[in-house]
Amino acid sequence: MSVVRLEESRERIRTELDNTVNFWLKYSHDTVHGGFFTCIGRDGKVYDELKYVWLQGRQVWMYCRLYRTMDRFRKPEILEAAKAGGAFLRKFARVSGSSGQWKCAFCLTRDGKAVKIQRTIFSECFYIMAMDELSRVTDDKDMQLEAEQMMEQIIYWVRVDSSGLGRPQLPGDFPVNSMAVPMMLLCLVQQLTEGRGQEVFQKYRELGSWCVQQILQHIQRDGTAILENVSLDKTELPGCQGRLQNPGHALEAGWFLLQYSTEWGDEELQRTAIDKFMELPYQCGWDKEHGGLFYFLDVDGHCPTQLEWSMKLWWPHCEALIAFLMAYSQTKKPELLDRFFQVFEYTFSHFPDAKNGEWFGYLTQEGKLALDFKGGPFKGFFHVPRCLYMCEPF
Amino acid sequence: MSVVRLEESRERIRTELDNTVNFWLKYSHDTVHGGFFTCIGRDGKVYDELKYVWLQGRQVWMYCRLYRTMDRFRKPEILEAAKAGGAFLRKFARVSGSSGQWKCAFCLTRDGKAVKIQRTIFSECFYIMAMDELSRVTDDKDMQLEAEQMMEQIIYWVRVDSSGLGRPQLPGDFPVNSMAVPMMLLCLVQQLTEGRGQEVFQKYRELGSWCVQQILQHIQRDGTAILENVSLDKTELPGCQGRLQNPGHALEAGWFLLQYSTEWGDEELQRTAIDKFMELPYQCGWDKEHGGLFYFLDVDGHCPTQLEWSMKLWWPHCEALIAFLMAYSQTKKPELLDRFFQVFEYTFSHFPDAKNGEWFGYLTQEGKLALDFKGGPFKGFFHVPRCLYMCEPF
Repeated sequence: MSVVRLEESRERIRTELDNTVNFWLKYSHDTVHGGFFTCIGRDGKVYDELKYVWLQGRQVWMYCRLYRTMDRFRKPEILEAAKAGGAFLRKFARVSGSSGQWKCAFCLTRDGKAVKIQRTIFSECFYIMAMDELSRVTDDKDMQLEAEQMMEQIIYWVRVDSSGLGRPQLPGDFPVNSMAVPMMLLCLVQQLTEGRGQEVFQKYRELGSWCVQQILQHIQRDGTAILENVSLDKTELPGCQGRLQNPGHALEAGWFLLQYSTEWGDEELQRTAIDKFMELPYQCGWDKEHGGLFYFLDVDGHCPTQLEWSMKLWWPHCEALIAFLMAYSQTKKPELLDRFFQVFEYTFSHFPDAKNGEWFGYLTQEGKLALDFKGGPFKGFFHVPRCLYMCEPF
Repeated sequence: MSVVRLEESRERIRTELDNTVNFWLKYSHDTVHGGFFTCIGRDGKVYDELKYVWLQGRQVWMYCRLYRTMDRFRKPEILEAAKAGGAFLRKFARVSGSSGQWKCAFCLTRDGKAVKIQRTIFSECFYIMAMDELSRVTDDKDMQLEAEQMMEQIIYWVRVDSSGLGRPQLPGDFPVNSMAVPMMLLCLVQQLTEGRGQEVFQKYRELGSWCVQQILQHIQRDGTAILENVSLDKTELPGCQGRLQNPGHALEAGWFLLQYSTEWGDEELQRTAIDKFMELPYQCGWDKEHGGLFYFLDVDGHCPTQLEWSMKLWWPHCEALIAFLMAYSQTKKPELLDRFFQVFEYTFSHFPDAKNGEWFGYLTQEGKLALDFKGGPFKGFFHVPRCLYMCEPF
């Protein structure tokens, strides 16, 4: 029964992945200035020409990953699109920061002029993902080196001195261990080291271990909750910031940890990843009334101050699908497959657009379409195809 | 008929104002560290101790304004609360900016340590409003002078050189006339000059006129739409930023302009304020299906990228009530009174909390409660009492 159902799911996943790739190949390429349009309406029309750097980097990465690992996407048009996107990024994304250090812009005009710089590490992180993966399909050692150089810069900001990011040090702004940072770095360690050999592996070994420890510090309340922000000494922070939960993010961290535990044969970490970073966020995050995963919650049941807290976003569901299917494939525990099917049912009955292809991204708590675009400042060619590409082979 | 209905509305407004003032007097005062708690749950409990500077300034201003202009609020406890809030602001809000210029923090810890600084002018604006209004009830000339000095700083940032705000100049970040800026400055001009005599009046006369012209530049599309952001040469900006509409904000600008037109006896401006800044935002912003005013819209009907675009927030409804009642009282046109009643019905049947007092702030498009707190990072003792205080006397 479950086997048949899983096979049916796989067929659906395969079809959706093809449709999604075709959507972005068809609508997102800027053949005049290079790079990718990221603000794309429900019918494929571009409604804003700004180019968000997170999404440029992610799209390059995703094209390359598909090209490199799945036979049916090993097509010249995908490779060419990835190379063109990479060239646009290299030409325009890097800007000189206020302290003379290299920063990447957050957003560019259609022709590549910097519009905005965030005082965080994430544009740089997606730049690295793009460059490293592109260097693998083009066998470009300089590009690999560039990715590793940018990585050194990020490690310096995170572990030594963050002042280069441009944020003033304020007496009430206490340092925070925000889950996004070790998650992102762990993702980059896995990206940079995969199949690269001993030298690179050793170079990032300690960093990977540090990231895992930093992520595990988010297990709080005697092991009963994953909190999004904790203090540097592993304790809970005061107020809304300290009580914030982001179930989709915790589930994403869950499968990052699961991958790491597999690589290192760490069974305890495997158990922790599943019990704490999958089961807990599912328990608190699943909407028993309307289905789907909440975006934000407060661990004490206060109302979050984020206006969108109760909305159902596409990406937490993508992360949940990856997490539960990966956990099931490693453990064969039927309850994990049940979770996968439950998320699958909600996801595939709510997010895909049967008419124009690709997925909607933003629903109300009740599951009604709230925002109808396919691409926006934070939704690009990434969470949907990454989820489908990772779930298809299981 | 309308007279009776208006009188009934006034009674309801009066009762709500009393309840609202009592709510904040009871729950928001920090008697240990001074200043006001702003994150207050539906039942009055503080759920976060951070002190948002916009809201500190607004609460001081509102207490003083009530004390100064309405007999029943001329009570020592209100004056003392305002003075205590003002003392907290003066002691902690001002921080030295990156360029050595004075900036105000956006957010403070409970004991006054700066947590965050915004690279905008608004914390400073609400600081000025607080200081000027407080100087009126305490007859403190130094405080008035301080408000005017801070005003010089803001005028310099807006009209001469914004680099002191700390935002890097980027080649793709074209200067924008964002409606909030001239609106806020016009509000401050009216605040600083009211009843102050010729010298102060002359000092800000040209600035007031400039603000009005800047606001009028937001009339776009051959007079058929108010757009939130326009270029410095009065043309429409590309993309989502250029197409953005914020009906509540336009309505607020409407009554700012109406006040100015009354002060100057400018009948053409009065007509423009009503026809363009009230009727147009109402026409585009009122939800014909579920009632209430949308938060954001796109003038071409694209989906806005703000996740909360379709939510019904308390403050646009407050601004609409002030706008339509002020416009009606000046013109006696019955259709303006109809608009007022329509907004009144929606507002008073959706936002007030009959059980614990004060108003909820955030509803779904369908009018369901989405966030249940009474005070948060952007909702304090301001829009609700300002609306009620302004509507009661008409």
